[in-house]
Amino acid sequence: MMHRALHELPRAAPFLKELLRLLRAQGPSTAWDGKDDAEILAPFLLPKGRRESSGEEPDPDVFWRIEIFHDAVGLAIEARTGVVCTTMLKMQHEGFGRLVLLAGRLVVVSRFLRDAHRFGFESVERLADAGEKLVAGGESMIERFPEAARYAQ
Amino acid sequence: MMHRALHELPRAAPFLKELLRLLRAQGPSTAWDGKDDAEILAPFLLPKGRRESSGEEPDPDVFWRIEIFHDAVGLAIEARTGVVCTTMLKMQHEGFGRLVLLAGRLVVVSRFLRDAHRFGFESVERLADAGEKLVAGGESMIERFPEAARYAQ
Repeated sequence: MMHRALHELPRAAPFLKELLRLLRAQGPSTAWDGKDDAEILAPFLLPKGRRESSGEEPDPDVFWRIEIFHDAVGLAIEARTGVVCTTMLKMQHEGFGRLVLLAGRLVVVSRFLRDAHRFGFESVERLADAGEKLVAGGESMIERFPEAARYAQ
Repeated sequence: MMHRALHELPRAAPFLKELLRLLRAQGPSTAWDGKDDAEILAPFLLPKGRRESSGEEPDPDVFWRIEIFHDAVGLAIEARTGVVCTTMLKMQHEGFGRLVLLAGRLVVVSRFLRDAHRFGFESVERLADAGEKLVAGGESMIERFPEAARYAQ
């Protein structure tokens, strides 16, 4: 998975494109030099065994990954609808939390997380699918409540 | 201010009633014994001088106070509309942050905070006014977008 060539990734997916752009933009300018897309996405992939194991120390970067994953969902929604979304994450105890994407007065995406400390996907395809599904859901919410989504302030 | 008698407080205000209920409920059962309402509200009051001073250490309880203040706004909105609200706070750097109350798919209350580490009011009246104003704003948002506010999931 780590050494998959760039052209094999489902790049047609707008979500994945936005996620890669965000990841490349956030690192120091040299951090990703020479790395292909699959390597950049590697921190989002968890082998099945690791996902299911327990008792290990939570990865301190996991909340950053959760936020950037959903930021990319927001950017893909914006690309399709013109509506700008903001991510808000509220973590509670033991990996439980709530994640929303907001636009205007609309909750565009709403998720209750559990096992947040093991946030990750089995493959790039699953990562892309999960993102696209949220994008599609957000898009239909904006269609349903267009006035709330575009409400200023 | 600290020794103002209970009957002098603007108790008619539903917001203040909810805030006091929350504060009394959250402390250990004996913590507030013998304390009147004004004493319980004292942590929300900041003398003008303290509000304007800078360079002091942020009070670690300030985020708890910000959340409970807005939780009380949500309870007062629920009492008037039947719509249950959830508070989400996202703090950024240097006291900047965003606070929302969510219900269904509606952003009932939306605030951008600054100087969050000096969150407080000059008097109980100002505290009550600030809460009531947010309650009224939330209520009118629910009237404006009733379907989004009552959207399940």
